[in-house]
Amino acid sequence: MTRIAFIGLGNMGGPMAGNLVKAGHEVTAFDLVEASRQAAAELGVGISGSAREAVAEAEVVVTMLPAGRHVLAVWADILPAVKPGTLLIDCSTIDVESARKAHALAAEKGCPALDAPVSGGTGGAKGATLTFMVGGSEEAFDRGEPILARMGRKIVHCGAAGNGQAAKICNNMILGISMIGVSEAFVLAEKLGLSHQALFDVSSTSSGQCWSLTTYCPVPGPVPTSPANNDYKPGFASALMLKDLKLAQEAAQAAGASTPLGAAAAQLFALHNAWGEGGSDFSGIIHLLRGKEKG
Amino acid sequence: MTRIAFIGLGNMGGPMAGNLVKAGHEVTAFDLVEASRQAAAELGVGISGSAREAVAEAEVVVTMLPAGRHVLAVWADILPAVKPGTLLIDCSTIDVESARKAHALAAEKGCPALDAPVSGGTGGAKGATLTFMVGGSEEAFDRGEPILARMGRKIVHCGAAGNGQAAKICNNMILGISMIGVSEAFVLAEKLGLSHQALFDVSSTSSGQCWSLTTYCPVPGPVPTSPANNDYKPGFASALMLKDLKLAQEAAQAAGASTPLGAAAAQLFALHNAWGEGGSDFSGIIHLLRGKEKG
Repeated sequence: MTRIAFIGLGNMGGPMAGNLVKAGHEVTAFDLVEASRQAAAELGVGISGSAREAVAEAEVVVTMLPAGRHVLAVWADILPAVKPGTLLIDCSTIDVESARKAHALAAEKGCPALDAPVSGGTGGAKGATLTFMVGGSEEAFDRGEPILARMGRKIVHCGAAGNGQAAKICNNMILGISMIGVSEAFVLAEKLGLSHQALFDVSSTSSGQCWSLTTYCPVPGPVPTSPANNDYKPGFASALMLKDLKLAQEAAQAAGASTPLGAAAAQLFALHNAWGEGGSDFSGIIHLLRGKEKG
Repeated sequence: MTRIAFIGLGNMGGPMAGNLVKAGHEVTAFDLVEASRQAAAELGVGISGSAREAVAEAEVVVTMLPAGRHVLAVWADILPAVKPGTLLIDCSTIDVESARKAHALAAEKGCPALDAPVSGGTGGAKGATLTFMVGGSEEAFDRGEPILARMGRKIVHCGAAGNGQAAKICNNMILGISMIGVSEAFVLAEKLGLSHQALFDVSSTSSGQCWSLTTYCPVPGPVPTSPANNDYKPGFASALMLKDLKLAQEAAQAAGASTPLGAAAAQLFALHNAWGEGGSDFSGIIHLLRGKEKG
């Protein structure tokens, strides 16, 4: 049993904190939103009056927040209140630069830290089947892993501070690009009179094979479990894909990397969002590419 | 035993014709290049004085030529000389429009036809392990399949005339896009201090998984059999990827399909070729994306 503080009880953080309670940990938590606090309380999470109060007795602090500025603000707020040696784990998906600043803030206070963004969405958060991509020292990872393992199924140590965020944005950049590529191919196939199933049969067993095709196929039919079969309900919302592609572009610009297709993918998902589809699954980008005549 | 005429005995056609001889067929062939005729003769292929002469007694004609204009010229030349009912199979990779014109030429003469472009490269041609993507009627496919099966391992019927070409360019457009996407991700990872192996470990088992990553990884190390481990010797030459991406763009423009990443990929491979790398494996595009400091 570990005393854990959990800051940020939204659609992801709430069920994740609940899974820590279920695993027998003592969880004290805070969120600015009253409804989120109530929902977490119903899962057995202890609610504090503030973030500072939540962390006072904690051995481990977990944060799950929208963006880098929130993480830096919360960590700056709570660090004076945590005991030295407390492990800080940020599970938010944020920019690499802020993640590394957060590590530095923690180090000043003598606290080990991990950046541990997740994939797997709200379903994974509820079912404790998330994947964690983790950056930080070996020592910090060894302490954090058993905690993360109660909220997820796969915990990958990606290297030093910030590398969890780096792995996530690199992976999701491949994902965003390949989903557009697969969608373009299906639209081209349609115009050439080639059936979805025929293209699927060829590419799923050859060099065009990719997760976007064989697990998450953007047209209904070939993969019955893909969101395309459920009117493109997420799944993984286009707004979140856009967020990750923007983070990849920020990182590329800061680090001096040239990512022409990553940049184009970010622009295309920005368009998809501008057309009011941010709440649709990201595979719905095929509608943007197909044009007015939805097939 | 079938009497087969084979027109076009280059790096692909030569060994393919040889495999038909090996399978017990009587093969009569022609190529404009003397050296290609000699190499094929050494494989037991009978050499004729012209394409017309080669096809005179054939039950099946196979062509393997560089581009659509060559296929149309050769088919127009030989069709007056073939017997009615002869099956014409074009294994070249050409534009969809020319492929459909070739089918129409054959139909005028009462000849069934197939477009049957391949993947698998010269290794697949020699080892008879090619994949054939085939367009044409069921009846023509049923006649052609046993012939193709002596030159390849996987024969996929993709639908009506031209659909073999359509499937190939749609698949290779996905491939070209995903290889650039994976390469961009590795370059971004390098600049962020994330190791190749860490990115591979995350993405190969999650939503970034694709053939370009897990079978043909563009950095040395994670997949020991990929061309990156052999100084980017092809494999599949960048010049051929550029050819296929251009065919995809031609088809998209003719059919009114919008393929923004396909267009960008064609431009990036054009750049890769412009930098003198047309003979390198297409995964060498990572050098273009990395910039001067080759890692």
